[in-house]
Parts: sequence; C-alpha cells; structure tokens
Amino acid sequence: MASIKDVAKEAGVAVATVSRVMNNRGYISKETRKKVEKAMDALDYHPNQIARALQKNQSFFIGIIVPDSNHPFFSDLIKYVEMSANEKNYKLLICNSLDDPKKEANYISMLRQNQVDGIIMCSHTMNIESYKKVPFPIVSFDRFISSNIPCVGSDNYRGGELATEHLIQLGCKRLLHISGPLDLDILANRRRDAFVITSMKHGVTYDIIEGAHNKLTFDYFWSFVTENISPAQLREYDGVFCSNDIVAYALYIYAEQQGIRVPEQLKIIGYDYHSFTRMLQSPKLTTIMQPSDRIGVMLTNTLLQMIESADGELINNTTVDVTLIKGETT
Amino acid sequence: MASIKDVAKEAGVAVATVSRVMNNRGYISKETRKKVEKAMDALDYHPNQIARALQKNQSFFIGIIVPDSNHPFFSDLIKYVEMSANEKNYKLLICNSLDDPKKEANYISMLRQNQVDGIIMCSHTMNIESYKKVPFPIVSFDRFISSNIPCVGSDNYRGGELATEHLIQLGCKRLLHISGPLDLDILANRRRDAFVITSMKHGVTYDIIEGAHNKLTFDYFWSFVTENISPAQLREYDGVFCSNDIVAYALYIYAEQQGIRVPEQLKIIGYDYHSFTRMLQSPKLTTIMQPSDRIGVMLTNTLLQMIESADGELINNTTVDVTLIKGETT
Repeated sequence: MASIKDVAKEAGVAVATVSRVMNNRGYISKETRKKVEKAMDALDYHPNQIARALQKNQSFFIGIIVPDSNHPFFSDLIKYVEMSANEKNYKLLICNSLDDPKKEANYISMLRQNQVDGIIMCSHTMNIESYKKVPFPIVSFDRFISSNIPCVGSDNYRGGELATEHLIQLGCKRLLHISGPLDLDILANRRRDAFVITSMKHGVTYDIIEGAHNKLTFDYFWSFVTENISPAQLREYDGVFCSNDIVAYALYIYAEQQGIRVPEQLKIIGYDYHSFTRMLQSPKLTTIMQPSDRIGVMLTNTLLQMIESADGELINNTTVDVTLIKGETT
Repeated sequence: MASIKDVAKEAGVAVATVSRVMNNRGYISKETRKKVEKAMDALDYHPNQIARALQKNQSFFIGIIVPDSNHPFFSDLIKYVEMSANEKNYKLLICNSLDDPKKEANYISMLRQNQVDGIIMCSHTMNIESYKKVPFPIVSFDRFISSNIPCVGSDNYRGGELATEHLIQLGCKRLLHISGPLDLDILANRRRDAFVITSMKHGVTYDIIEGAHNKLTFDYFWSFVTENISPAQLREYDGVFCSNDIVAYALYIYAEQQGIRVPEQLKIIGYDYHSFTRMLQSPKLTTIMQPSDRIGVMLTNTLLQMIESADGELINNTTVDVTLIKGETT
C-alpha cells in the first residue's frame, strides 16, 4: 500500500506539503494541490484517518444531536452545518434524540466513545449538570447551559417583539400567543417574554396558550389547535403570534374552516421560515425568519474555534438577527 | 481510567457479558443490561471505540451520500436510516453531494479514509466504474450499479403505471409527463417508461417534458414550469403526471394562476408523499407514496447484512411497494 512518502515523491513535493493538502491547512497553491491530488489518485492512496485520529488525539468528527432531523428547521440547519464542517475537513455524525432524555444521554456517550472532537447540541431535554460533565467542546443551539458552553441562536426576543409589534401596528387589539413548551429553559421562550412585554407596553389585551413538546408534524399541531382553541374562543382574537410556522399553518386552516377570514378578521404570524414555509404558496405565511444558513455556519465555526484553540480561550455567545417576512396572513 | 474488567467486576458479570451489552449483540436480559449500564455509569466508563475500530478492523460507522439532506424526501430517508442504524449500534455520517461528481468522489474517498464499514449511496452523478472500485459494501438507492451492489428502491414502474392509469380512469385523454433528468441511468426513469407504455396501451395521446437536474426548491421548479410550458400549451392537456411533488405543486399554482381549474379541467398527480406533501393541506396533492420509512430501514438492513456476512453472500435487490394517495388534484 502506498505511503505519504510515496505520494510526496510522485508529486515532487515535501511530505509536509502532502499533509497540508490532506488536512486543508495553511496556504497551498492550486497547482500544488492538483499535483498532490493527482499523485494520490495515481497511487490509490487512502490514508487511514482512524489511525491518525488515535495517534493525534483528534478525530475530525463532530456530532450533532437534534430532536428530529426530518423537521424542516433542523434539516435546514444540518445541511449548513455539514457543508461548513466539510469545508474544513470535519465529518458530521447525526443523532435523533426524539426529545427523549435517555436517548440524548446515550448519544452523548456514544459520541464520546467515538472520540468526536465536539458536539453541537440542538436537543435540550437533559438537565444542565449532565452537559457540564462532558469533557470536550459543546456548542448549544438556543439554550444557555454554562459559561463554558457557548450558545448560538436567533434573536428570539427581537423576533417576538417584531411579530407582536407587527400585529399591533396593523390594528390588532386582542392578541393570542401559542408558545412552545415553557417548562424547558430554552431561549425560544424569549419570544413569549417579548410578546408579553410588547403587548403590555401598547396596552393590548393578550392570552397565551402553552404548546406541549413538539412532535413537529402537521397532524400533531392540528390536534393541538383544534383541541385547545374552540371556534368561539378563536373569534375573540384579532391577531395570533405562533411560535412556529407549522402551528401557524394549522391555525390558518382551522380559521378558514370556521369561516374566519385571514387576514381580514384574524391576522396570523409564525416563526422560522424554514424549507416548508419557503415552499408553501397558499397562503404565503407572514413569519419571522431565523436564518438557518447563518446559524448553521456559526454553530460549526464556534465549535471548530473551540476545538482548535489550544488555550481554551473564552468564546462568546452569538445572536443571529431575525427578519420579518411579510406574507398574506397579516 | 476504568477498564472493561472493572465494569464486569462492579456489575458482577463476565467481561464477555459487558462486551455483549456494549455491542448490543446476543441475548442479554433486561436486568443484566441494567446492572452493566449502572456499573458503566458509576465508573464513568467510556471505551475508546476508535481504538477498538482499528484493532477489530470494524468502525461501526456507515456513510450516507445524498444530493441534498434538506430535501424533504432525503431528510425523511436520513431519519429512518439513522434510527435503524442506531438500534444496531452503527453511527451515521452524512454527506451532501449537491449532485456534483467531484464532491461525490471526495466524499467516497473521505469515507474510505475514515474506515466506514459501508456506504448508502443516494447521489448518482459518478460513472459506474468509480463505484465498483470501492473496496467495501455499498448499497444503492434507486440505481443499478453492478451485481455486487444491491439496490433498494420503490417500485418506480408500478408507480408510473398507477399514476397514469388513475388519470386515464378519470377520463383524461391528453396526458403530459414532467419527468426527472433522463440522462442519468436511475430507476426513477421507469416512471417515465410506465407512463409511455400505459398511455400507448390505452390509446391516449401523450407528451413528455424532461426535467433538468433537481435543484429541489419551489423556486427552481416554478421557473422550470413557467419557462417550459406556456399557458396555451397547458390548456391542451387534461392530465399531468409529475415526477415529484414539488413540481406537481408548482404546476398546480401555475394552473390556478392561469384560471385553469384543478381537478375539473386539469388533473395533476405527483410522486413522493414526503414530509412537505404530508403537511400541505391546500391542495391535498394526489400522489404516489414512496414509503421513506420502509426504504430507509431496508437500506440500512441490507448494508448491515453485507457488512456482517463474513462469506460475502449475494444479497438481493429490494423493491418496496408504492401506493396511490388520493388527494384533491385529481
């Protein structure tokens, strides 16, 4: 089997240069890269990265734990995490926790046993102490865990504020917010906080219905909406801020079925603007966009910075801007 | 650091039993499993699976290469592959080829260097010879590569037949098929073959418009539909079979914009019934369901069977049944 020395000889470069090409580090001219890649091809050279990982104590594996990789927001996010990790030669292991604390703990243990260099944590059912025990870098999506675990998220407070102000500016006087589950201490709950503060500031009447844990399918949210809000109750409101786009869509269909005209009688605004919402044409939902591309890249970059900073420097939390997308439901 | 022997001692079982629990193999009673897991927790035991992989020449990593992990069909599939792999202690590495042959080749090389035990190949832009050179098990989704590479897919021919017969039974006389790209030798093209044969059999006039490579967004298919089919041309047909649900949805919106009533004047049927279609309420698309759950589990099981069969026994191709889902567009 060919060795790195054979490749260097074949390409007419130094062994260190071959190593730089393979690890995608430092400056390498296009021609040199081509020469090295050609030599690797010619010699059918496939270095054993697992052996290297063991030797160097760095695997170039990162893990991502999500509640459900099939949910349009997380599948957006995974794509951008994978692509930005791949640019820097890191490989992504994906894990579906299904919001089950036991599964989540098992995945963390599995990732640890497989010597991942770090984890992106998007599932948040375990208690905070369990994360603190993990002996390698973690970046958290949308949840403050501890000062050693940087957090990346959209500006949930600003999102809630934008959504509520939008409804009030359009003349809504009796607002409803359908929140996510508030028992988990996650940053998404700030959407609710902003809804309350903004409603109070403008002297607008409001109610909140707390969502259960996300099963994240239309059928789940359809049952949730129809079981928790009677048609008579829905008629009492003129504006609803939904904590995600699927529940906003379910509410829209429910309102239409009840003969409540959207947006004339009832204005609806969602949150996410993920691939489902981008594809949906009737109605085009008014919503708050969390930019999954920027969040995905930021999660990866923050994690790699932690992995590669030898001195364990302090890394900041990142809040990514949100934007109001005006559709046809307000 | 604790060793496997310490765990066995703490749990009061044999080392082989601890090993069986860790590898999820053979029969282990619930109590024994609990005892071992408790001992592992108590001793904070995290065996280095990378070292084991190197020693045993088996990594328990599998790779999946998809065109776009964010497309609703592939994100469905990835979820079921990941969950069924995890049940058997295999970890899933995901790779987005974006239908770029160079990226696809790089991912195969990367997976090879990382000693994966096998690959599930859902991206098909490379030529067949390149796959044949890969020295470990591959399972292909929807493409015959060679007799050593089993293929799992839905019954594309039956799907095309069901769709076309459905339109004809409803009285359609002038059919259109919007196919996928036909230059790639993939099984999805059989949908087109069945469309042609079924139309001929019933003496029905038909046309085919060939799709380009999937960019897989609504905007892409919207441009495709509006640029390739004039309103006058669309009025010539009374039934359209679309090769995927996103293009069917784009065509539906286009027809409505042109004042063509669906299904009265024009019947539309799609293909996939993935998470987007399942969530979409207006219209509920008539479509052919490829069961991504069964396909995902089958891809995993076929690959693991190849990995674990020492004697390289021949493994068959699998064709998963499809079903007509009657919606409101026919």
